[in-house]
Amino acid sequence: MRKKINVGLIGYGFMGRTHSNAYCKVNHFFDLPYEPVLHVVCGLEEDKAKAFADQWGYRSYTTDWRKVIEDDEIDLVDICVPNNVHAEIAMAAAKAGKAILCEKPLALNGKQAREMVEVVEKAGVPNLVSFNYRRVPAVTLAKQLIDEGRLGRIFHYRANFLQDWTISAQVPQGGMATWRLDVKAAGSGVTGDLLAHCIDTAMWHNGHIKSVCAMTETFVKERMHAETGKVEKVGIDDACMFMCRFENGSLGNFESTRYARGHKALYTFEINGEHASIAWDLHDLHRLSYFDHRDDSIVRGWRSIHVTDADMPYMDKWWVPGLQIGYEHSFVHQIADFLENLAKGKPTSPTFSEALETQLVCDAVLSSAKKGAWEEISYR
Amino acid sequence: MRKKINVGLIGYGFMGRTHSNAYCKVNHFFDLPYEPVLHVVCGLEEDKAKAFADQWGYRSYTTDWRKVIEDDEIDLVDICVPNNVHAEIAMAAAKAGKAILCEKPLALNGKQAREMVEVVEKAGVPNLVSFNYRRVPAVTLAKQLIDEGRLGRIFHYRANFLQDWTISAQVPQGGMATWRLDVKAAGSGVTGDLLAHCIDTAMWHNGHIKSVCAMTETFVKERMHAETGKVEKVGIDDACMFMCRFENGSLGNFESTRYARGHKALYTFEINGEHASIAWDLHDLHRLSYFDHRDDSIVRGWRSIHVTDADMPYMDKWWVPGLQIGYEHSFVHQIADFLENLAKGKPTSPTFSEALETQLVCDAVLSSAKKGAWEEISYR
Amino acid sequence: MRKKINVGLIGYGFMGRTHSNAYCKVNHFFDLPYEPVLHVVCGLEEDKAKAFADQWGYRSYTTDWRKVIEDDEIDLVDICVPNNVHAEIAMAAAKAGKAILCEKPLALNGKQAREMVEVVEKAGVPNLVSFNYRRVPAVTLAKQLIDEGRLGRIFHYRANFLQDWTISAQVPQGGMATWRLDVKAAGSGVTGDLLAHCIDTAMWHNGHIKSVCAMTETFVKERMHAETGKVEKVGIDDACMFMCRFENGSLGNFESTRYARGHKALYTFEINGEHASIAWDLHDLHRLSYFDHRDDSIVRGWRSIHVTDADMPYMDKWWVPGLQIGYEHSFVHQIADFLENLAKGKPTSPTFSEALETQLVCDAVLSSAKKGAWEEISYR
Amino acid sequence: MRKKINVGLIGYGFMGRTHSNAYCKVNHFFDLPYEPVLHVVCGLEEDKAKAFADQWGYRSYTTDWRKVIEDDEIDLVDICVPNNVHAEIAMAAAKAGKAILCEKPLALNGKQAREMVEVVEKAGVPNLVSFNYRRVPAVTLAKQLIDEGRLGRIFHYRANFLQDWTISAQVPQGGMATWRLDVKAAGSGVTGDLLAHCIDTAMWHNGHIKSVCAMTETFVKERMHAETGKVEKVGIDDACMFMCRFENGSLGNFESTRYARGHKALYTFEINGEHASIAWDLHDLHRLSYFDHRDDSIVRGWRSIHVTDADMPYMDKWWVPGLQIGYEHSFVHQIADFLENLAKGKPTSPTFSEALETQLVCDAVLSSAKKGAWEEISYR
Repeated sequence: MRKKINVGLIGYGFMGRTHSNAYCKVNHFFDLPYEPVLHVVCGLEEDKAKAFADQWGYRSYTTDWRKVIEDDEIDLVDICVPNNVHAEIAMAAAKAGKAILCEKPLALNGKQAREMVEVVEKAGVPNLVSFNYRRVPAVTLAKQLIDEGRLGRIFHYRANFLQDWTISAQVPQGGMATWRLDVKAAGSGVTGDLLAHCIDTAMWHNGHIKSVCAMTETFVKERMHAETGKVEKVGIDDACMFMCRFENGSLGNFESTRYARGHKALYTFEINGEHASIAWDLHDLHRLSYFDHRDDSIVRGWRSIHVTDADMPYMDKWWVPGLQIGYEHSFVHQIADFLENLAKGKPTSPTFSEALETQLVCDAVLSSAKKGAWEEISYR
Repeated sequence: MRKKINVGLIGYGFMGRTHSNAYCKVNHFFDLPYEPVLHVVCGLEEDKAKAFADQWGYRSYTTDWRKVIEDDEIDLVDICVPNNVHAEIAMAAAKAGKAILCEKPLALNGKQAREMVEVVEKAGVPNLVSFNYRRVPAVTLAKQLIDEGRLGRIFHYRANFLQDWTISAQVPQGGMATWRLDVKAAGSGVTGDLLAHCIDTAMWHNGHIKSVCAMTETFVKERMHAETGKVEKVGIDDACMFMCRFENGSLGNFESTRYARGHKALYTFEINGEHASIAWDLHDLHRLSYFDHRDDSIVRGWRSIHVTDADMPYMDKWWVPGLQIGYEHSFVHQIADFLENLAKGKPTSPTFSEALETQLVCDAVLSSAKKGAWEEISYR
Repeated sequence: MRKKINVGLIGYGFMGRTHSNAYCKVNHFFDLPYEPVLHVVCGLEEDKAKAFADQWGYRSYTTDWRKVIEDDEIDLVDICVPNNVHAEIAMAAAKAGKAILCEKPLALNGKQAREMVEVVEKAGVPNLVSFNYRRVPAVTLAKQLIDEGRLGRIFHYRANFLQDWTISAQVPQGGMATWRLDVKAAGSGVTGDLLAHCIDTAMWHNGHIKSVCAMTETFVKERMHAETGKVEKVGIDDACMFMCRFENGSLGNFESTRYARGHKALYTFEINGEHASIAWDLHDLHRLSYFDHRDDSIVRGWRSIHVTDADMPYMDKWWVPGLQIGYEHSFVHQIADFLENLAKGKPTSPTFSEALETQLVCDAVLSSAKKGAWEEISYR
Repeated sequence: MRKKINVGLIGYGFMGRTHSNAYCKVNHFFDLPYEPVLHVVCGLEEDKAKAFADQWGYRSYTTDWRKVIEDDEIDLVDICVPNNVHAEIAMAAAKAGKAILCEKPLALNGKQAREMVEVVEKAGVPNLVSFNYRRVPAVTLAKQLIDEGRLGRIFHYRANFLQDWTISAQVPQGGMATWRLDVKAAGSGVTGDLLAHCIDTAMWHNGHIKSVCAMTETFVKERMHAETGKVEKVGIDDACMFMCRFENGSLGNFESTRYARGHKALYTFEINGEHASIAWDLHDLHRLSYFDHRDDSIVRGWRSIHVTDADMPYMDKWWVPGLQIGYEHSFVHQIADFLENLAKGKPTSPTFSEALETQLVCDAVLSSAKKGAWEEISYR
């Protein structure tokens, strides 16, 4: 018999939808000790919160996130609001003893993130940050192949996250749809929004980044603010790239931009090892490319692995071989793992503590870009 | 306010899962006049039916499909059982005034399908056959491009459906997992299972097939029957290919097999028109390939369209550009359209009547292969 | 010390160029006992023959092919003229004791081809038909993989040759550039021009074709004749497809057309075996796709083999790994093998005798299409 | 009537072969005022020089490059030797009034390159550096599309050159086959060998690079020297990456390594503009990828342009649409342009002067990597 776990969702935007969908689906596909119940959704505008609750089957809605925290029936607080509000909500939830799922990036900066880590750890509540791409089956498979030692010594890690949706200077900043362009809400631009994903995956795959050297650019210097209607200076980074050294001696090259015409959400990574290499991209997320130098030379080539068979990570839960899953499933896997571990009293990666490390790299990247110099990273 | 519509699902196999998932998701993403309620699931084995009901949230379960039909609370009967049982259930459901969603192929043969059409049309009940691939957004987009006249006169239609799961002679026939290899349950092999999909899409895209010339093969002649444990002659076609002429003068080439090593569910089609061509495959179902000869010659090439933007068919309901959906979503779209049309009193394609035409082509294909000669098709 | 071998080239069209280029290059890359000398080129128009001789370095030119045959200094006669003239020239050359390289298809039909085989075999002269695609390294590699038994039992062979250059009704028939559309010069349309290549490769890879069932179509029924200026009925097949059975029990599906918008010269084949599959296409001729089911399941996928390393067929002669060769190189390999075998007194495949078999399949295909029925093929 | 131009080739290695092949082929395909004559080849080992002369048809050979310079019959000196010998030979050739084709990179460093430029410009001799990839038709097409303004404002330029041939620590340094690993012969590692190509193309496409920030790594610290047999410290960079700013405000990201398992010679670039983007890779050099945002949104996607039609750069000289050329052809195009311009008295890009600029960027890259800081580049 599954135990009910009451969810309070804060934020009804894009991420609110992906998380709600995950809660609704997870028990249909995974055999779990817990069953999430959509207890309450919270958002700033009452009519929107109500409509969201109706569409997704939340029992109630509110416009005050503190009510979610104060509600004794709530077991799990799910934070899907802009980055600048993560800390306050998460720390309040922790103090109230709630389990927490927080959207990425964890915080506006490392200092804030560190404070959050301290609070959740002191409270001893289960905590997870939604770096969902780790749980795309092909990405999880990459981790498995690395852990099995198939690649041997790693020489290179390369990751890009390319988009093209802000090329027009007419795109505003701020507001519900475009808060990611407003430095006050987002903290940074592509660094926190996109590179944070790349960094999370990279350190999971390849260990700590030791030092970075970055550059950033803001191509469109001023944009209208959606809330004030005024043209304001743009404070975020439109593009950011950095070179780095990992602790294992490999070299990294990371780049993100929202000015790469033709790419909507092209997160790619490639890992080159002594024996084998791996490549993946989000536009065809159900495939993993793999090259193994130990193959017979006359049949050696990049393999396009269609990650749909039942022996692939998570894929025994879904359909039959050849039938692909999509973007949303990474969130289902995240919830499934979280609920599974909750029952076992085990942490689920990436915890707040691990997300803090990603934040520290982001901070170093932004600082390096500002100074135009290399920056060492301390994870202490 | 959405009106509830009570669903009785008959069959808890692979298709039962895809349909249940669609019922659960559809109102979260589509704004519809109806909301399906999972009322009852029916299957042969009680413990499995019970487990299925529990997993998906069906209010009840039964092992007797007649009880589903007789239940006055049921509005919609959903038939997800082996092909040889479609007719009896569907006709009983029609006579009981239920809306019907039936898995493909509609029947064991054209004669049976015609009888079913007559019964549902006499009963005047809404009816839909689950040729779900029509509603993969890229496939729907292909239809739109053809209807807009972008291809001009069509010369060629080519479709394959390649699998590799029955190459081993150890795979049994019959039973829950492998009834598709048992001619008594399936009626035919790849023709009804796989080519029926290709034919449905092709006639939707390109009009009636006028005549066919086919060949079939059964590579593994005997297999153990999963129910009897005895080695029995295999009655199905392992592979089937046919050439055809469409009424619009274009030529068709269709092939299906379960002996194409390396392909799990590789449904592909390509359409060559005077001005433009289109190609698609199920292994990367979120892409459509398009070539337009009217492009400037120096930038002319096959375009790989990542069908994820909001102006693509159905895609305004899902995520953001660049984030792909998967196989299961075609079933959600199917239910969404069915519910939408139900409210409007409009039929939803493909109806039983349209599926009969696909059945007639399948019959002609099998008959042609048997005779080794061309066969004309009459849709009267 | 290399021995000189004097070449008489008959025909200065597209194929005359590919062969001349091969003669010029072969000794720069292959270590051979013979060195071809461009002795004479023959063509219908004197000024063009002269210009061709000048451009390629032929010592002389003529407009009378009989002079080439009669010239005692000529060792090798190379026939690059339209199909309807192959027989007369080849038989005269054989009788004059010349080695012969003849463009494909060997003849207008099997009867003529058989006569040619008898004459060359009686004369005992070295003879080779230019089915050059066999010697694209990736295609040769495919043969090697099959011969090594990597695929196991073969179930399917599929080949297409798709073009789009005759879609416009304004393209004329006949004359130097478009004789391939004139049935008198070409004998047939896509069957002899394109499917002959597919059949040659298929029988080399997979053994004899036992029976065929074909259909043809002529989409544009009348075209102006380039020589007469008159609109004349088109006698060739614009499109042809056929199903077949190979002697080894596998099934074949072949299709060719000049009405596949977007494809210039898309010769593709795919072979499905019990253990492994192979696929190739001419638009990226330096790659071979290979899938091996015996790979570890979690890293199993289609491999894209970049056929450029030195252990690949012919590739030790060219550049360095990663640097691709192109279309023209298949002709260089053909000449290299021919010269190598000449010195050893060994035949070079495909001989006239093997090309006769391809011709017999073409005949059966055209006959089957005409009758609308299956046709058995006798190679006696 | 073509005028003869006597070529003296210095260096019979890999590049000596590509250049010789180009001289042999160029007049067969291009209608030019000049015809190169293979007059003399020069190399260190007499037997190899003799064999090379025999294989390629050079009239004579020598082991003393000064004899080539002193020979009054020589019109063009072609320098295909290791980088450390370029300067001396080129300057001597210039002083002797010869036209010069020099392999890339021009020199060991900017200082040396500048001296070479001064000498050739003072001598007024035609001079060209063999950055051959500019003349791959797809790369030339990219330039054409940029110049036509199709991309609009450029935001990003990204280029990689990835290889995997030196991963084994057993590969020696120095000697004929591996001089590229010997810092004394090569000057640098991947920077001069591979990134120089990327930089040349990038500045041709996108204008001057203003500043760079680089990192380098030497993964294998010691290797046996092929000439001395002793294990010596490796002085070259095994991997190098750099970030940069172009004068037009766009950002660049460049990376090269010989430790990217699975890539033999994977030179790739991608250019993101306001309206359109372009991508290319050397492993499929006959294709250009192009995305144009101005396409109708429902048929918008990356186009794979098969650069084989006659209206593509250089392609009217080769075969027919759909039939690809290979690596070697870029050298033929280079010679064709050089000879064409020679007759017109026009310089051919990239001249020594343009190659100096590439050298200055390489110097800045290496210097930046050493200092771990940004470096401004002055082209004065």
